[in-house]
Order: sequence, then C-alpha cells, then structure tokens
Amino acid sequence: MGTTQLETVPEPKYWHLKTVLSEALDSDFAVGEVLPNERELAARFGVARATLRQALEQLELEGRLQRRRGVGTTVAPPRVGVAVGSTRHSWPGESADGWEAVDAAEAVPPAAVLKLLGTAADQPVHTVRRTRSTQGQAVAAELLYVPAASVPGLSVPGLSAVDAPAGAGRARAVLRELQRLDLDGQDRSVELGSARADDAKELDRLPGAPVLVVTTRYFTAAGTAAVSIATYRADTCRLTFGDSGDVEIAHDTRVAS
Amino acid sequence: MGTTQLETVPEPKYWHLKTVLSEALDSDFAVGEVLPNERELAARFGVARATLRQALEQLELEGRLQRRRGVGTTVAPPRVGVAVGSTRHSWPGESADGWEAVDAAEAVPPAAVLKLLGTAADQPVHTVRRTRSTQGQAVAAELLYVPAASVPGLSVPGLSAVDAPAGAGRARAVLRELQRLDLDGQDRSVELGSARADDAKELDRLPGAPVLVVTTRYFTAAGTAAVSIATYRADTCRLTFGDSGDVEIAHDTRVAS
Repeated sequence: MGTTQLETVPEPKYWHLKTVLSEALDSDFAVGEVLPNERELAARFGVARATLRQALEQLELEGRLQRRRGVGTTVAPPRVGVAVGSTRHSWPGESADGWEAVDAAEAVPPAAVLKLLGTAADQPVHTVRRTRSTQGQAVAAELLYVPAASVPGLSVPGLSAVDAPAGAGRARAVLRELQRLDLDGQDRSVELGSARADDAKELDRLPGAPVLVVTTRYFTAAGTAAVSIATYRADTCRLTFGDSGDVEIAHDTRVAS
Repeated sequence: MGTTQLETVPEPKYWHLKTVLSEALDSDFAVGEVLPNERELAARFGVARATLRQALEQLELEGRLQRRRGVGTTVAPPRVGVAVGSTRHSWPGESADGWEAVDAAEAVPPAAVLKLLGTAADQPVHTVRRTRSTQGQAVAAELLYVPAASVPGLSVPGLSAVDAPAGAGRARAVLRELQRLDLDGQDRSVELGSARADDAKELDRLPGAPVLVVTTRYFTAAGTAAVSIATYRADTCRLTFGDSGDVEIAHDTRVAS
C-alpha cells in the first residue's frame, strides 16, 4: 500500500522487512527454492535475527513461504483456488464434487455438532470421513455427520448397501441414502482453526497447524439432515465461492501482503 | 473426537493438554475471566511451561483465548457470525450491508489488484476505505478499488457528488456512482492473511495478526467493475455464507477443537 494516499500508520520494522523480502522473493527466487539460513538473511538485509524471524512468520502466514523440518524454508507456490459451494445446492458426494469417501463409523459427535444437528447424544449418528485432493495434493479432510434418522434405508436388512459394515463402501452407502432425500438448502461458515492430529496427518501438516474450518449444514423440510466439518490447509488453499457453479477465481492473490 | 471409532493418530502432549484446558475453560471459567499465569497453570496441569505455551497458542488460534498486552490471557467470547455475501447480488453500500464508508482517494492499487481489475497501472483508480462493525466492535476493514472508467459520472463537473474531494462524502459518491451500473455477478475467495499496519490499527490488533482476507470481484457486462479486499479479524469472526440472504448460522462453533 506504499502508494496509497489514505491515512497511513507507522509500520513496525519487521513489517517493512516483510515487504522488502516479499519483493525479493518475486525477483530473486524461484518457487521451491530453499532460502539462505537465518544468519545469512539477517546479514544480507541488515536486521536482527528476531526481526527477520517475525518477518518470515508473516510470510508463512500469507502462504509465501513454507517451513519444513529437514528441508528448511522454501518459496511456496501460489495458493490453489478450491471451490467451496456454488449457488446450486447438492448433497455431499453428488456430481463429482472432488471428495473421496474414505471411511464410515457410528460415533457420538462432539457436543457442538450435536447442537447443529439438533439431536440428542444417545441417537446414533453415522460419521463419514472424506478427503479432497487438488492437483494431486490433499487439501482438505472432512467429517460428515448423518443422523441415522436421516437415512432410515441404511437399516433395512437385505440392502446390498448395508453389507459393507465399515470402510469406503459403507461411507458411499451412507452418502447414497442421503442423496435420496430432497435437499431444501444449505448454509456455511468459515473460520480459523488448528488441525487435529488425525486431520494433520492426512493433510501432511503438524498437529495444530492453522486451518480453515468450513462448517456446512444441509437442510430438508424436516430440518438439519447432515452436518459437515471440513478442514482445509490454510497455507496452500484459497477457498473460492463462485457465481457460476464451480468456476474458480483464476488469480494470484498476493493482495494481503 | 475422543469417542469416534475412526482410525486415530497418537496426539502430541500439548494437544491432549489443549483438550483438557478447553474443557476446563467451559466448566471453571467465565467469558472475560483472566487465566492464572503460565507458571501456575503449568503446575496445576503438571506440564512443562513449553507444553503449556503450545496449548495456549492453539486455543488462541481457535478463538477460545485472547492474549492482550497488559491484560494477560482471558477467556474469549464465542466468535461472532458475520454474514459475507448472499445469493442475491448487490453492489457495495447497497441495502444497509453493515459497512461504513470512511475515506476515498485516487491511488495506484497493488499489482495483484490491478491484475484482478484488468487495468493498467497508469489508469486512475478510486480507492474507498470502509469499516464494518458488529455488536459495537470493529470486525473488518476494506479497501474497495473502483477504476475511474467504471464510474465516469464522478468526473462530470457540477455534480454535487464531486464537490467532496476526499473523506466519507467522496467515498459515498463513488459508491453511489457504482450502484448506477447493472451488476452482472460477483465471486469471492477467502484465505488466511496477516493484518497490515493500517488495518490492524482499525481492528484493534497488532500488525501481522492472523486475519481472514475476503476478495470480491464485481462484474458488469463490460468486465470487472470493482474489486474489494476485506480483512476480517480471525480471532473473533466466523464468516457465514447463507442461503436465505443474510441469515446467520446461530451456533457456537467449538467444533474444530
């Protein structure tokens, strides 16, 4: 924002360094390139190690740098736009939505999910685990909660769908039953969170890494039929909400920096 | 997720502590209450200071705790649901959207914004600064970029709108001219970022604090007429994307923890 005429606020030293570093990344480094170590960088830019470290943290938060144990700090590729929702409503798993069903189980959801579902803790709930990949990389992990009352067909004996007691087959059976219902609508929220250990493993991150948590409620005329809690990598993903179905915003959002 | 039967991954110590602490926050502390200092907490839970600090960082990331200089660590209120976009499209400033116009200037936008606008760096662009408050608290700061070519009426001499050369009056004049155009559509993206110094000041945060950056493009038949870069506090906000206009998801999303 160096060129704007709007009222400006004095910037801390690491912030200025961040801007300088960001420009150096554009001009002097290629994506994937390993940065010199902190001592060298601090010397090159004439700043204290602590100042440098703060600037590097900012750049990591903005997705410009990746820090990995044993590899060091590398220049990150631009964030990948991942389409989340469109104006057309559809059930999870309908119309090749990019998710893969991995597993299913009956489990007691966390209290907050029970509240969203409006069900009691003693009601059986199917929990479907799915993962989503873009360009060959895992970008999101999801737990989809479907009260047994939403999918009564699953309990009818003799259906082939019921024959798989667990695993991906069972997960797909739950989705198939869900898709028989008339979807009335859905709503979503996005917030900052930290990756649970199991999600972190799936997303190739450390537990506690910043993630974007997308909570979706699916409604039928009878009420909330399912709740999805999807955890997206915050370092590599930009969530897109498009007008025209799943068209992604094709741009490099180096805007916040 | 302690009760799920899905495959689980061993959790690091600080993660377990985080869960225990989170439950303690629910049962033993009130919103706004100051937590005991790190030494006391570490002793109470029988963990090392470093482990405690990691757990506190996670809880801060998830919006459960607030750490402020001179105040200490307090229990955060539940995040506020802030409606971002609806299925009905409207221009910024139309139909009481919760934003307040603060200032306007002609400025050269950052390179990434120029790319989104599809304009050259030497084309004049109006930059409108707006802020958004919910429940009396600043939750977001926005820079709205409107190429002068989108709002030719602004340059017609003698219009009262043009009389205010800067400030909120000028900002409202830009919005008013924009609203004369036929809006064809809009798209959005959400990503993690860090607060610029001027946004941080407005949002009562330190520069570099994690924020959710919402980028919106507004289209007319002629192309991109305006681009908005809105910076939401990630600690206190949950962005909601509703079906039915601006109805918020009324829930406490203690789901990611």
